Amino acid sequence: MEKTALYSISSGVFLLGTRSGDGSKINGCITNTCFQTASNPTRLAVSVIKQNLTCRMIQESGVFALSVLDDSCSFGTISRFGYQSGRDADKFSGAEYALGANGCPFLLSETCAVLECRVLNEINLESHVLFVAEVCDAVTTGKNAPLTYARYQAEVKPKREGKAEGEKTIVGWRCRICGYEFKKPELPPGFECPICSHTAEDFEPIYG
Amino acid sequence: MEKTALYSISSGVFLLGTRSGDGSKINGCITNTCFQTASNPTRLAVSVIKQNLTCRMIQESGVFALSVLDDSCSFGTISRFGYQSGRDADKFSGAEYALGANGCPFLLSETCAVLECRVLNEINLESHVLFVAEVCDAVTTGKNAPLTYARYQAEVKPKREGKAEGEKTIVGWRCRICGYEFKKPELPPGFECPICSHTAEDFEPIYG
Repeated sequence: MEKTALYSISSGVFLLGTRSGDGSKINGCITNTCFQTASNPTRLAVSVIKQNLTCRMIQESGVFALSVLDDSCSFGTISRFGYQSGRDADKFSGAEYALGANGCPFLLSETCAVLECRVLNEINLESHVLFVAEVCDAVTTGKNAPLTYARYQAEVKPKREGKAEGEKTIVGWRCRICGYEFKKPELPPGFECPICSHTAEDFEPIYG
Repeated sequence: MEKTALYSISSGVFLLGTRSGDGSKINGCITNTCFQTASNPTRLAVSVIKQNLTCRMIQESGVFALSVLDDSCSFGTISRFGYQSGRDADKFSGAEYALGANGCPFLLSETCAVLECRVLNEINLESHVLFVAEVCDAVTTGKNAPLTYARYQAEVKPKREGKAEGEKTIVGWRCRICGYEFKKPELPPGFECPICSHTAEDFEPIYG
């Protein structure tokens, strides 16, 4: 099976914002796996890496807000929400956001739409959880085109940095998307993260 | 709720091919609601209008092939598979296709990838059924970019024809996507199909 053939499935890029059950904490992550699954009534499906804090918080609160990122979105926004864990950082600190009627955070800029959702079903898919949700509210927030994942890869994401210079010894590689650690000094050719399928470009060195 | 805000969710365009349980009949439809939901193991989700024959046949056989359409795809291909029902026509008659290992048809041109899938779960969403499937095989079939739904709308789909001339009286409108019939002579402003959410552009007149 050519796993790379699945890269041809087009998608957008979204900030999936949620909250804890009691509303005392908010968090979010970047996802490109979201679609409208039914129109009458309006239903949406979104898939989240199971070990992301966002996944656990959606399971707890049963609600989320989807910010549909537009083509003005900067890499800073993607890296703020997609390249660090809510376990280590308050991702929304310093971001321009608001809370929706369901208490979930959404961005006030770099979006073309915001959808507020309530989970109806969840399906356990081992590496991911698939949530099927009711769309409770939907608002157009801007006129820019939606950011596509293809454009993100080609134009927004910086090219991979060269290997570290100097004296440091690389003992492993960490996936910047999901945190998976590969504990050998060199990634094999064509390596893909076993958790989130991202390639070597999304790994950063771990120094010994 | 602004339902049009959901149009900002980017997607590709796919031919979803399937077969009857005994393999004596093949059929397919066009969909733009498909994404990879998990990577380890590889899982895909696709949503299909419940009253489409394709939906019933997938429920019966439990298998399908997804042809990822590329940007060379003609409107003829879209209309062959998307604008008529398999109940009235043999959609694959005259098309260049082959059958995969699971007996489901896929196109031999106008695609950039083909994925063969086996259904694991189905979720009833009233107007649609959401299928979660194992990807059994995935092959890259071409180098063109995938056709996006946005490009399809802007560049591939012809603009709506003018109203019918002559003596005929329009007594209603039929959705060319799902077959829903609106039984009044004029569609209300901003009308959307209650089954598949397509707008007035996708309705054809019914003459009295």
